[in-house]
Amino acid sequence: SEQSSMAARVFKIASIPGDGIGVDITDAAVQVLQKLSSTFGTFSFEFNTLDWSSENYRQRGFYAPQGGVEGLKQYDAIYFGAVGWPDVPDHISLWQMILPIRTTLNQYANVRPTRIIPGTLSPLSACAANPSLLDWVIVRENSEGEYSGHGGTTPSTAHAAHTVATEVSIFTRVGIERIVRFAFETALHRPRKKLTMVTKSNAQRHGMVLWDAIFYEVAKEYEGRVEFDKMLVDAMTVRMVNRPESLDTIVATNLHADILSDLAAALSGSIGIAPSSNLDPTRQFPSMFEPIHGSAPDIAGLGIANPIGAFWSAAEMVRWLAGSDGNSNIVGLVSGPGVGNMVHAADCLMKAIENVTQAGIKTRDLGGASTTKEVTDAVCIEIGQ
Amino acid sequence: SEQSSMAARVFKIASIPGDGIGVDITDAAVQVLQKLSSTFGTFSFEFNTLDWSSENYRQRGFYAPQGGVEGLKQYDAIYFGAVGWPDVPDHISLWQMILPIRTTLNQYANVRPTRIIPGTLSPLSACAANPSLLDWVIVRENSEGEYSGHGGTTPSTAHAAHTVATEVSIFTRVGIERIVRFAFETALHRPRKKLTMVTKSNAQRHGMVLWDAIFYEVAKEYEGRVEFDKMLVDAMTVRMVNRPESLDTIVATNLHADILSDLAAALSGSIGIAPSSNLDPTRQFPSMFEPIHGSAPDIAGLGIANPIGAFWSAAEMVRWLAGSDGNSNIVGLVSGPGVGNMVHAADCLMKAIENVTQAGIKTRDLGGASTTKEVTDAVCIEIGQ
Ligand SMILES: CC(C)[C@H](C(=O)O)[C@@H](O)C(=O)O
Ligand SMILES: CC(C)[C@H](C(=O)O)[C@@H](O)C(=O)O
Repeated sequence: SEQSSMAARVFKIASIPGDGIGVDITDAAVQVLQKLSSTFGTFSFEFNTLDWSSENYRQRGFYAPQGGVEGLKQYDAIYFGAVGWPDVPDHISLWQMILPIRTTLNQYANVRPTRIIPGTLSPLSACAANPSLLDWVIVRENSEGEYSGHGGTTPSTAHAAHTVATEVSIFTRVGIERIVRFAFETALHRPRKKLTMVTKSNAQRHGMVLWDAIFYEVAKEYEGRVEFDKMLVDAMTVRMVNRPESLDTIVATNLHADILSDLAAALSGSIGIAPSSNLDPTRQFPSMFEPIHGSAPDIAGLGIANPIGAFWSAAEMVRWLAGSDGNSNIVGLVSGPGVGNMVHAADCLMKAIENVTQAGIKTRDLGGASTTKEVTDAVCIEIGQ
Repeated sequence: SEQSSMAARVFKIASIPGDGIGVDITDAAVQVLQKLSSTFGTFSFEFNTLDWSSENYRQRGFYAPQGGVEGLKQYDAIYFGAVGWPDVPDHISLWQMILPIRTTLNQYANVRPTRIIPGTLSPLSACAANPSLLDWVIVRENSEGEYSGHGGTTPSTAHAAHTVATEVSIFTRVGIERIVRFAFETALHRPRKKLTMVTKSNAQRHGMVLWDAIFYEVAKEYEGRVEFDKMLVDAMTVRMVNRPESLDTIVATNLHADILSDLAAALSGSIGIAPSSNLDPTRQFPSMFEPIHGSAPDIAGLGIANPIGAFWSAAEMVRWLAGSDGNSNIVGLVSGPGVGNMVHAADCLMKAIENVTQAGIKTRDLGGASTTKEVTDAVCIEIGQ
């Protein structure tokens, strides 16, 4: 056969399970990815698991060791579970881990597709009756803006009567232009070819006004090819609830898209389903794939976490790696088989996920009664068929 | 009668209709307020209408004239419609009008109640079936934070390849502490006595961390009297959608609460219903009352704008003025009749609104077919009964 005549392409993946249910769902994703590679035979994954966790922080004082984030550059991709634990302040865990990875590896585009997959129920009556109303991709600026980390507190103790703290958001032309262009390319490769840009340029009159200006500048290049409009972030939440069918691709700042993508996940049925790809579209450095949910300390270790968001993220990773031969830097652009038939593999994984949820093999957050393992095994069986 | 033996208390109100449907709904609110005062006979309103509009800006180059905002200090309250028109950049209209009013008049607490009133339908299936699940008050910090206006763009043209813009959020101990305390007092006077504080202190590690610290400090004073918890703003949208009944009073920053209150309004059935009170809790300066919706250029002048958000805002104004004798600086705290029986009048107005929506006399956004005038007349008739 054609398959046996080719050497399987091997991808080196750094896997960072992190904390809580991050561990359960990363295990599940690795199992599913291995089943996928053994089924297709044309590609395989070499996983290296990195113990960058809150446990590690407690015992040794750090999440990633010195040089750890730089060391990720040797991999083809990074698979990330979740990080955060109640006994470590969140701003410490995140600024030592997920945020430096995103910026150090130039992962400036965070892509978050949302739709209502079969067998899941939207809390919105309209979408429960007609799931196809909601089909969005949120493109999140992932390298600057409200997540720049600049600012400070003076005096450094919160206790003084006159303490002042600042949060400084930095917006650069380069940063805005590249994410806007990425979003237009994403929209161009979606069936509806629509892009909605979100800012808060009425109240925030510097960086947000720059966003608007650069957006309209880039938009000229896509005139007639992509339909576009602009929303204020507050009004955008109303539109997502009331007119989901009017939206397709959405581009927003780091913070706005963080908020809107959680809302999108909730409206689509469960935060446990939603995937997220942190992409370096230049492909100079590895991209990172993670479900959007957190470490969920309340259900950690119970074996009931929903692995679908993790599987969908894995499917996005496979799709991204399919373009490794340089034929795409935009999600969804590779329409052929890609490297080692991997576009087909990604489609197969998505189909397997949907068959399983459709069949009612679902965790509690989706109204089912299955365990993480039961869902995972069911997806593996589907892949094999 | 007791009434005729007292001189009616006269309140001086600055009315600023602004743009678009702001004009229609302010007219409607004035009509309803006058009906209320003639019915009760113990208080009355002297309206002074200020033409601070985009039209004014086009003709004379400004919204409020020199000294205009300062001049508002002579009134007992301000009633505001909406501002913004497509031919004026939003950041100009807002920074010349609504934002300076809020800060100059020390209106540091923006209070936004949300519930599902009779005859309206939540887009959430769960709340459509059981409207009592959603009953929130959002307390928004209204004087600083992301709306400080600090920052800039360098070089000042957006066109340079290396243009950088900043948005600087300023958080002060004074600003945080007073809004947190206001929110605890609000929660204390609500039946469920619960307060949820929202920040993004995992990603924003200066001002947001200060918020958290000050919140827990103030919380100690309310331990055992108010139940409280903390959410990240992204996860908060999920909780609002999935577990509305778990929330009661909510306190958040200027931007976060701006976003969450629009979402709240959408989840409760229509943005056309939602009221907003910009309060100076010290009562040194007049407070301002405005529906949360905007000027809606698309339906301006058609006579079909929903006046309910305007009426509810008017009811909140009446309730606030009821405390003018100094017996309250917290919404809802005045439980007796207040000045001139005005608490009863506010209750009467709310009841009239609910009877009218319940009877199906509703504008299009609520699924009805009535005009602004029809709804207004119906509310006036209800008040008279
Ligand atoms: C964990 C946190 C820092 C992160 C974010 O805010 O980016 C998360 O909410 C996400 O959406 O990926
Ligand atoms: C008009 C705009 C500046 C305003 C705000 O963002 O505060 C509005 O959205 C609101 O919620 O009152």
